[in-house]
Amino acid sequence: MLLHLSTWPEVETYLQKSQGIILPIGSTEQHGPTGLIGTDAICAESISKGVGEATQAMVAPTINVGMALHHIAFPGTISLRPSTLILVIKDYLTCLVKAGFTKFYFINGHGGNIATLKAAFSETYAHLEDLQIPNSSKVQCQIANWFMGSSVYKLAKELYGDQEGSHATPSEVAVTQYVYPEAIKKAYLNPEVAGGHKIYSAVDFRLRYPDGRMGSNPDLATSEHGKQFYDLAVEELSKGYLEFLKQE
Amino acid sequence: MLLHLSTWPEVETYLQKSQGIILPIGSTEQHGPTGLIGTDAICAESISKGVGEATQAMVAPTINVGMALHHIAFPGTISLRPSTLILVIKDYLTCLVKAGFTKFYFINGHGGNIATLKAAFSETYAHLEDLQIPNSSKVQCQIANWFMGSSVYKLAKELYGDQEGSHATPSEVAVTQYVYPEAIKKAYLNPEVAGGHKIYSAVDFRLRYPDGRMGSNPDLATSEHGKQFYDLAVEELSKGYLEFLKQE
Amino acid sequence: MLLHLSTWPEVETYLQKSQGIILPIGSTEQHGPTGLIGTDAICAESISKGVGEATQAMVAPTINVGMALHHIAFPGTISLRPSTLILVIKDYLTCLVKAGFTKFYFINGHGGNIATLKAAFSETYAHLEDLQIPNSSKVQCQIANWFMGSSVYKLAKELYGDQEGSHATPSEVAVTQYVYPEAIKKAYLNPEVAGGHKIYSAVDFRLRYPDGRMGSNPDLATSEHGKQFYDLAVEELSKGYLEFLKQE
Amino acid sequence: MLLHLSTWPEVETYLQKSQGIILPIGSTEQHGPTGLIGTDAICAESISKGVGEATQAMVAPTINVGMALHHIAFPGTISLRPSTLILVIKDYLTCLVKAGFTKFYFINGHGGNIATLKAAFSETYAHLEDLQIPNSSKVQCQIANWFMGSSVYKLAKELYGDQEGSHATPSEVAVTQYVYPEAIKKAYLNPEVAGGHKIYSAVDFRLRYPDGRMGSNPDLATSEHGKQFYDLAVEELSKGYLEFLKQE
Amino acid sequence: MLLHLSTWPEVETYLQKSQGIILPIGSTEQHGPTGLIGTDAICAESISKGVGEATQAMVAPTINVGMALHHIAFPGTISLRPSTLILVIKDYLTCLVKAGFTKFYFINGHGGNIATLKAAFSETYAHLEDLQIPNSSKVQCQIANWFMGSSVYKLAKELYGDQEGSHATPSEVAVTQYVYPEAIKKAYLNPEVAGGHKIYSAVDFRLRYPDGRMGSNPDLATSEHGKQFYDLAVEELSKGYLEFLKQE
Amino acid sequence: MLLHLSTWPEVETYLQKSQGIILPIGSTEQHGPTGLIGTDAICAESISKGVGEATQAMVAPTINVGMALHHIAFPGTISLRPSTLILVIKDYLTCLVKAGFTKFYFINGHGGNIATLKAAFSETYAHLEDLQIPNSSKVQCQIANWFMGSSVYKLAKELYGDQEGSHATPSEVAVTQYVYPEAIKKAYLNPEVAGGHKIYSAVDFRLRYPDGRMGSNPDLATSEHGKQFYDLAVEELSKGYLEFLKQE
Repeated sequence: MLLHLSTWPEVETYLQKSQGIILPIGSTEQHGPTGLIGTDAICAESISKGVGEATQAMVAPTINVGMALHHIAFPGTISLRPSTLILVIKDYLTCLVKAGFTKFYFINGHGGNIATLKAAFSETYAHLEDLQIPNSSKVQCQIANWFMGSSVYKLAKELYGDQEGSHATPSEVAVTQYVYPEAIKKAYLNPEVAGGHKIYSAVDFRLRYPDGRMGSNPDLATSEHGKQFYDLAVEELSKGYLEFLKQE
Repeated sequence: MLLHLSTWPEVETYLQKSQGIILPIGSTEQHGPTGLIGTDAICAESISKGVGEATQAMVAPTINVGMALHHIAFPGTISLRPSTLILVIKDYLTCLVKAGFTKFYFINGHGGNIATLKAAFSETYAHLEDLQIPNSSKVQCQIANWFMGSSVYKLAKELYGDQEGSHATPSEVAVTQYVYPEAIKKAYLNPEVAGGHKIYSAVDFRLRYPDGRMGSNPDLATSEHGKQFYDLAVEELSKGYLEFLKQE
Repeated sequence: MLLHLSTWPEVETYLQKSQGIILPIGSTEQHGPTGLIGTDAICAESISKGVGEATQAMVAPTINVGMALHHIAFPGTISLRPSTLILVIKDYLTCLVKAGFTKFYFINGHGGNIATLKAAFSETYAHLEDLQIPNSSKVQCQIANWFMGSSVYKLAKELYGDQEGSHATPSEVAVTQYVYPEAIKKAYLNPEVAGGHKIYSAVDFRLRYPDGRMGSNPDLATSEHGKQFYDLAVEELSKGYLEFLKQE
Repeated sequence: MLLHLSTWPEVETYLQKSQGIILPIGSTEQHGPTGLIGTDAICAESISKGVGEATQAMVAPTINVGMALHHIAFPGTISLRPSTLILVIKDYLTCLVKAGFTKFYFINGHGGNIATLKAAFSETYAHLEDLQIPNSSKVQCQIANWFMGSSVYKLAKELYGDQEGSHATPSEVAVTQYVYPEAIKKAYLNPEVAGGHKIYSAVDFRLRYPDGRMGSNPDLATSEHGKQFYDLAVEELSKGYLEFLKQE
Repeated sequence: MLLHLSTWPEVETYLQKSQGIILPIGSTEQHGPTGLIGTDAICAESISKGVGEATQAMVAPTINVGMALHHIAFPGTISLRPSTLILVIKDYLTCLVKAGFTKFYFINGHGGNIATLKAAFSETYAHLEDLQIPNSSKVQCQIANWFMGSSVYKLAKELYGDQEGSHATPSEVAVTQYVYPEAIKKAYLNPEVAGGHKIYSAVDFRLRYPDGRMGSNPDLATSEHGKQFYDLAVEELSKGYLEFLKQE
Repeated sequence: MLLHLSTWPEVETYLQKSQGIILPIGSTEQHGPTGLIGTDAICAESISKGVGEATQAMVAPTINVGMALHHIAFPGTISLRPSTLILVIKDYLTCLVKAGFTKFYFINGHGGNIATLKAAFSETYAHLEDLQIPNSSKVQCQIANWFMGSSVYKLAKELYGDQEGSHATPSEVAVTQYVYPEAIKKAYLNPEVAGGHKIYSAVDFRLRYPDGRMGSNPDLATSEHGKQFYDLAVEELSKGYLEFLKQE
């Protein structure tokens, strides 16, 4: 059930049986020479829809732009500063809590969002208690990183071994190939690709990773793999969401 | 050309021939008993894609959540505060200007965004000049409200007359019916619907407009109308975008 | 009744019969070679006093500095950033609402303030509801742009036709000549004056409009015209204020 | 020379011979049963004009609303929060420094502004150096509290002794009587007036000082005294301004 | 070498041979019935001093108050909001980078700080590049959580097994007992202690963990254990710091 | 009684008999060629501990970094911007007021903190009343500058006369020598030392005061003097704290 395709009376009805909502969050950032700039948002959005269908959960519109400041030396990247993203999350949750939602399940497609999301949750819990909104003390946020799920991780290792890398990975590229087969990109990929450096400033990032990949070989990706990753992620996160709902 | 379905080298190539980009912006807010909560984002996104195809322009991911604080007394609405939206726009544009974009064409689906967008542009121009980014003085932002285009307006008057109203209008509902025919909603709509009041606080809004509509009869909408509105809007805004690009 | 010339017990008494207040807002910005930097504030202040006398309304001190970032490449301009002006308006209104005021009528002398004022009102309505101040849901703000009143507009067209322009206009200059006859400035004005460009960054503005005027010929202004404009504006806005007070 | 009554070319000419400017700052706050709400702004503005005439200095428009949060339990008070006032001052000075001003002389009418002004100056110096504006390291701000001048202080002691008090003082009321003889207010003033308490929250302030006065007897004020105070202040601050200009 | 016990010329000399600095960061928060409120700061500070001695590194003053909003329902807790802590870190690093430091090693005593610190680093890298400070692209920040070091973790498991828990742990209490033997506190500790819940709002936290412990038995701590933990942590983090310095 | 060496149940018990707390605040800034960078924090912390022992007051952890933007052209200085420090103080006090504290006695070691602290108190009083925390109207903050105490001031004049100066003074250096005799620094001090200039930007400060001292001769300091200053300060501020507690 997509919030964007619902009416407000439908939301009112939904709230009588569930206070949970899924929020897909991705990023708009370079993903190497062949990965789509929307990779993280595409993965989060498609998997969220799958989880929503499997669990009859409400799914909010995708947060397309996240925290990707380390990628802004590559054209096409758009990033919020962490302090801005905190305000965005606080505004979203404040509206939704006033309406009656209390369980927020963020299906996340980008590692760079995690720290800021956690900071935003702390900021928001305190804000809601200050506002004295009913049920504010019961609000719970959880991050589910689809790419860190154990079944997804295992398959990636099986299929790609070390060539999975840590950015512009074949697994995430595969999911986008499954979702948008018409947008599969090919280019020569230098097999000598740097990996393993820590992430600091944007200028530094581009120096260390000149084509944007971090130790990955996205050439290995196929849309068939993408379907496998998608299915595993939907299954694993659907369980995760239902457990989250049950948890007191 | 969708930014989300492009790679960073494709963006680099694009920038050599154009510094323009289309940014769809909508809202996530109640649209009466039968209008979709995502109406404004759906309209902005679909029309932006059409304009992007017609003009070979780059189209950024849709800003789904805008300034809709006056609607938050209805469940399902999500709004940024104006001060947050200003920061969001500033962050977006700063990234894109650093990459080389200078012409920003916001295709907007929500009247409530206009004031904050204009404020954000002023804030951003000054910020970019303070940062001394090359070309910052050449940055130009423009808002194109698809629902205010003269051909769209004329058709709405012809088809609906006064029943067009000013929120949850049959014209915008029609566009969503054209884009998402599977999500057409029906409900009894009280023909006695208030209209014409000014907009103040969220609580006040819900008192004045108990079912969310402002003087409109969205029952008149059809997906055929939706196609007509869509075609007119794409044609008119494509012209508008090309003129904007040419303008010094 | 000027707030600045009142005592707090007088305000307390006033509040028992009215919850309305007029807030003049102008700008401190270049107005071409002969227009006063305080033009917008002078017009807003003088007309507000006139309206206050005609309607027995309380008039707050003038907000002299508004949103004029596009003029800061000319010396003498002082501007708040939109994000600052939003905070200023929020602080003003929060104090006044706590005291019992609920109807805020901004008599505005500067087009560049409008977007930010509207954004500020949205921000403030939500803030006041969050603070749970009694009557916060009843708070209403309205902008009355004296220069957009129909009678004023008609006279400007009659007197100046196209030479009214859109900045440093003869109509606003005329009002300042009526209010401050001792400060009438004369200088050679190039009859070739640019007009009609959109407004972007401050550097861009000065390039397009080298002497600060936008398509106007302020040489046509006289203090007699100024009196006419003043009288029309006071009459029209006095009606507007009284209607605003009556409106539920 | 009033900035508001000048044109931008006049400012440009002025800057060739002086980089100094006087900024009057007051407050909009209760001043006891008979003192005007605008007392602090009226005093600062009138004395600033006098100093401007005596020294041929440019005088900026008056900052009418300052930091008066401790007075907001009395109706009619309007205050900025310190964090807002810091932004306001930073915005003012950034514009003026870009234009070429470097010497800022704040003629202040309200003790409650002093701490925030000093904080704002520190914030602004650092901001200007970060922006790398030419001459930013030479920017100097100074606060001149007219009511603390030694000649003013001495006269107040002679005329009123302990009944000068520390808020709604006869000396400041006298200046407003001199400037606005038509707005002299009379009311019964309880001779038992509290004084000497420290200032904490607004609610606490009103409990300690039920009619708003702090140990003062403004009944002693006359407009003749007002003229004396005005003359002394103008003389003392004119000297102060000229010394400030000369100081490296 | 403690920054607080150095002079500025000593810092200048130090910078000629090293651009690294250690920043201890703790928290001021409840640590159960017997744990000290300063536990996290005490551990971070003492271990930082040890590492500073072992590596001849400069050690900054301890950030005593961190992000502990989930503990504020217990008296004595002081927390910054994440958005404040981000500003604090940004201010610290901006000063130190201007002086010439580029390698920032945060020795952290509190899990709740991690997310906000990471967000702050991203915010700061971008800010420094915007300021165009020389070397800003080379700035590197790293978090070293002493309690997560492998040798520390192993010893905790050996000594306490599951009774280590996850807050008010015997290992951290032991370190404080070693550092402040005079402040060892004893109290009856209910052996039935909750553990394993996720962390949400402050009110929720206190309901789940009524005495503040999370699954831990700090009664097992001894100051001898504390010395062992201290020695292991200093050894492990000293290596970590030297590797960090060497890393390009 | 140090908060950092207390448990939360001890704080709970303490609050039943006192709602007062001492907050030491210093700075991390250059103090001339021989003064310690931590001078202001060391003095504030040690004197606070003494006052805490003498009065059985709770003492919070020291705020080591304050407002020292004018010193940042010297390496080793760390400063918060005033706007950041205001947020820090607001966050601290909000936590402590929620816990039950109402009397906040800031023992301050740095003149540069005073303005921002006062601004922060005003901001916080208003914030707490907005949050409607019980007792928020009773919250009281006071600054006690140990170096301005009359007995301290008198001794400094006796011992050093004009060579006390106004920064890197022998009196504050003496206190650090008493507290940290192992960290006494010696260097050649040019007897020609500038003094008496006002404080503006950081670059300007370093030009005026090349070695960091302001008119002082810290060579006169001895640890014996330090003990005298310490004893006088503890005695005077202990009285001050007890009077503050008694004051309604």
